[in-house]
Amino acid sequence: MSDRGEINVGLMGLGVVGGGVAIALLEQSEEIARKVGQPVKLKSILVRDGSKSRDPRIPAELVTTNPEDILSDPAINIVAEVIGGIDPAAGFLKDALSGGKHVVTANKEVVAKFGPELFSLAQQNRVNLLFEASVCGGIPIVGCLMNQLLANEIHSIRGIINGTTNYILTQMAHHHTPFQQALDEAQKQGYAEADPTNDVEGIDAVYKLAILASLAFHSRFAPEDVFRQGISSLEPRDFQYAEELGYAIKPLAIATLSDGTVQARVHPALVPLDHMLAKVDGIYNAIEVEGSLCGHVLFHGMGAGREPTTSAVVGDLIELARNLASNTGMPAPASLGPGADGAYNRQLRVGSTDDLTSKYYLRLDVADRPGVLAQIASILGDGGISLASVLQKDTDAEQQTAEIVITTHPAREASVQESLAKVARLEVVREVKNLLRIEE
Amino acid sequence: MSDRGEINVGLMGLGVVGGGVAIALLEQSEEIARKVGQPVKLKSILVRDGSKSRDPRIPAELVTTNPEDILSDPAINIVAEVIGGIDPAAGFLKDALSGGKHVVTANKEVVAKFGPELFSLAQQNRVNLLFEASVCGGIPIVGCLMNQLLANEIHSIRGIINGTTNYILTQMAHHHTPFQQALDEAQKQGYAEADPTNDVEGIDAVYKLAILASLAFHSRFAPEDVFRQGISSLEPRDFQYAEELGYAIKPLAIATLSDGTVQARVHPALVPLDHMLAKVDGIYNAIEVEGSLCGHVLFHGMGAGREPTTSAVVGDLIELARNLASNTGMPAPASLGPGADGAYNRQLRVGSTDDLTSKYYLRLDVADRPGVLAQIASILGDGGISLASVLQKDTDAEQQTAEIVITTHPAREASVQESLAKVARLEVVREVKNLLRIEE
Repeated sequence: MSDRGEINVGLMGLGVVGGGVAIALLEQSEEIARKVGQPVKLKSILVRDGSKSRDPRIPAELVTTNPEDILSDPAINIVAEVIGGIDPAAGFLKDALSGGKHVVTANKEVVAKFGPELFSLAQQNRVNLLFEASVCGGIPIVGCLMNQLLANEIHSIRGIINGTTNYILTQMAHHHTPFQQALDEAQKQGYAEADPTNDVEGIDAVYKLAILASLAFHSRFAPEDVFRQGISSLEPRDFQYAEELGYAIKPLAIATLSDGTVQARVHPALVPLDHMLAKVDGIYNAIEVEGSLCGHVLFHGMGAGREPTTSAVVGDLIELARNLASNTGMPAPASLGPGADGAYNRQLRVGSTDDLTSKYYLRLDVADRPGVLAQIASILGDGGISLASVLQKDTDAEQQTAEIVITTHPAREASVQESLAKVARLEVVREVKNLLRIEE
Repeated sequence: MSDRGEINVGLMGLGVVGGGVAIALLEQSEEIARKVGQPVKLKSILVRDGSKSRDPRIPAELVTTNPEDILSDPAINIVAEVIGGIDPAAGFLKDALSGGKHVVTANKEVVAKFGPELFSLAQQNRVNLLFEASVCGGIPIVGCLMNQLLANEIHSIRGIINGTTNYILTQMAHHHTPFQQALDEAQKQGYAEADPTNDVEGIDAVYKLAILASLAFHSRFAPEDVFRQGISSLEPRDFQYAEELGYAIKPLAIATLSDGTVQARVHPALVPLDHMLAKVDGIYNAIEVEGSLCGHVLFHGMGAGREPTTSAVVGDLIELARNLASNTGMPAPASLGPGADGAYNRQLRVGSTDDLTSKYYLRLDVADRPGVLAQIASILGDGGISLASVLQKDTDAEQQTAEIVITTHPAREASVQESLAKVARLEVVREVKNLLRIEE
């Protein structure tokens, strides 16, 4: 194999993941050299605060606070970005690519929002941009969609791609913990951030799903193409009723392609208890891909955390380094990811959630009075929604209230929303507590 | 992207999988061209019997019975081999590689037995040899071990990699079907061949595990390095007792690396009911990889059949074609697979099963007499084997026999085998019916 010269990595960011990547490059250097065919040297590490104490295994002379020490160093041919967020990471990535450096990033927000621009820059400059770590770190789903599963027309992706919300819902389901308490526990365990909005409201999952849908369907989907509903309206009793009905409640991300229309959505949903996704608990992630040839393939593993994300970043670094070591010319199209070239420019429509057909789970607080259910059923019936099951729960004699849990047969989302708005205006209905989709 | 000329595929074999590959190349040609960046043409198909009736979608002019129409055609730059078995496939593959053609193969037996020779030939001739379809067709495990998971030191692989035996054991577990009847059913469904030896005796799984262990541990393992035990000694009552003890019985393939020693084995084993592998039923396959960084990653999907195998073969074809279309020079080392170069020449020992430490499940037919258990327990105790549980079952008053089921704490396999031989010689022991390992 030809040696085209040194392979030098500039690492941007030295947080939890950056530390993992730095230690792996430093301590596994012999192993990595063996896998690549020549040494891969960590040459510079960009940090924000040079005075912060660091892992003693990281030599002080590698650390810099000046991004130009990486971006303007002609000896650095690969940049690994693990800063996260848009600013300043997006600018650094653009500069790195424009400067002819290969890039590995773990930054889902940047890839989801600026993917097409970045991949065009990569193509113009004949370099690669890899991003396995941007979606579900320890699960090699990005590479599989870009490479091994490429013979398939992908019909759907369905998964649990946010470990924080899966941990919270698992606590609520197994220990009847209220939402806020489960969130507190997740923060205490380090699974949720101080500001949990991105996880709890599904924003993190939306970034990941936009990336996966782009790869799976060979088109370009932005975060705003994904419908989003958070998990904070769930109560422990929803899990209890769901289980009575034969379902678990899971934080799902779903993208389907049918008749040229893609539906992408992130929301909690009821999943049959015997489905593999119902058994994915705690901080674990899982993704099920349905392809025209491969059928259903499920990937299950750790989606976040220092080591799993390091596995993905260093895996991409090794791939790039191998290409450099083996004198590979122009990168293959799939390495360029969504939106860069003909392979990712399929014309597809983004479907409205109104047009979704699904089964639904409704929970209502109503007056405990004869004829209430008849009024509700009549409105739903007028909307073309037929009931699959009705449970009357927790009648409170003193307050004269009752709780009604309804599941429906498949119905159009727009009809369900419209009918439910009418139901909510009924004098006998105190509150519509929850509307959840059921995924079979 | 530069166009280095036509990409022409020669397909060897037109059985179940060959038919799937041919139809995919013919009917998905536009899709494939878009993914590759230029057309990929199916130029010739080798069949054994030219007079056999074929799918009408396959043009007669593509079909030949002369292998030289592919091997000696300078316009064919990729050969896809889906004949299976050693002869004549192995010779064709050697000729194709020696002739400078890239190769895709679905042939686990050839890769497991002749891997090093083939990969050396590929390297000498600067061509690629891809074999995703050789292990668990629809599950992209080969590519993930060679690429995405490469940053990891792999500690273990544990999986259900033979769908036929998983189908048989699932029938036995869920419907108390005797082994022979479950096998008949598998043959009727087309899941087992007329001669089921390769599946039932674990030979098929041994080929696959030898390939996976070579990739995971970056060394070279041959089929004879893998311990093998078939499933024909199992009876429905074993599944019943296992379930009482909290286990399922699954056809496992396991390879572990510890202190420079690899243990590789294929045998039925007890798996805790709440483990993901216990929930893999029917013809489905699953593989769990444990890596130093990624943690536990599980892949679940269809391991065999026309479409899943076609997914893998055509996926490899697209990868090769993309490399050709994008003017990639020397292939990256990992594409060469086990044993070809420095990356796959780690020096590791193959461990003897004698040195295995495991928990065990024993089932014995004994005389229904006082003191029998004491005699057995005494021999096991002398061997350093302590009991975890004892069930006495199915006492037959007329025959004066009883059945004893014992599980042990972790013990050395050599001690267990030696002690069990002594137990078998006890006058009160009618027969040792089964010895199974328990995987926690």
